[in-house]
Amino acid sequence: MKVNVIQKFGRFDDYWHPRIAAELNETHVKLVKVKGEFVWHRHQGEDELFWVVRGRLKILLRDGEVSLEPGEFAVIPKGVEHCPIADEESWVVLIEPKTTLNTGNVIDHRTLRQLEWV
Amino acid sequence: MKVNVIQKFGRFDDYWHPRIAAELNETHVKLVKVKGEFVWHRHQGEDELFWVVRGRLKILLRDGEVSLEPGEFAVIPKGVEHCPIADEESWVVLIEPKTTLNTGNVIDHRTLRQLEWV
Repeated sequence: MKVNVIQKFGRFDDYWHPRIAAELNETHVKLVKVKGEFVWHRHQGEDELFWVVRGRLKILLRDGEVSLEPGEFAVIPKGVEHCPIADEESWVVLIEPKTTLNTGNVIDHRTLRQLEWV
Repeated sequence: MKVNVIQKFGRFDDYWHPRIAAELNETHVKLVKVKGEFVWHRHQGEDELFWVVRGRLKILLRDGEVSLEPGEFAVIPKGVEHCPIADEESWVVLIEPKTTLNTGNVIDHRTLRQLEWV
């Protein structure tokens, strides 16, 4: 019933491949390791929260950027194009509706249609 | 747009009085400082996530308990009676639907019908 976030991150190694750590109501809490640049995309119907627990995450926006360190989070509202980038391996907690597709409106080789639990 | 969780916790001092730190979709992320024993209650329609960032939180259940340290979280499913307790001051992040009342099905002097942002 209890989840230790750092221990869960220790269970996988691949980047840009979120795992589900909790489900509550219509929301998932996901863990993702990131490094390098993801893809520009937006989520038509879902606000998305990024919470950094290790490393540093930059989220590029069309009109600026947000840079997050451990203990910081930001919400990217639905419809807002964004592109996450991390210079070094970083560990990020995502909070978002269960319907959220990782690449949003973009379908490419990184699109994950089904997520496992960690 | 960016939220530093620890900084936000520095902005208030009272116990068992959650503040809203983020809103996404139908969900709130709230920050609450706790100390002592709260009240036994349940949320009829809402699962509730407790994430400890400082101190230690014990959540009593009718058939057991969960003890959380920093970096650990637990989901209390809708309908499950629980009573949070903290021996020392502890800082907890709550993730739950916007409709969630802090005392659930119990109305007492700690019931908060409106929450401020922090």
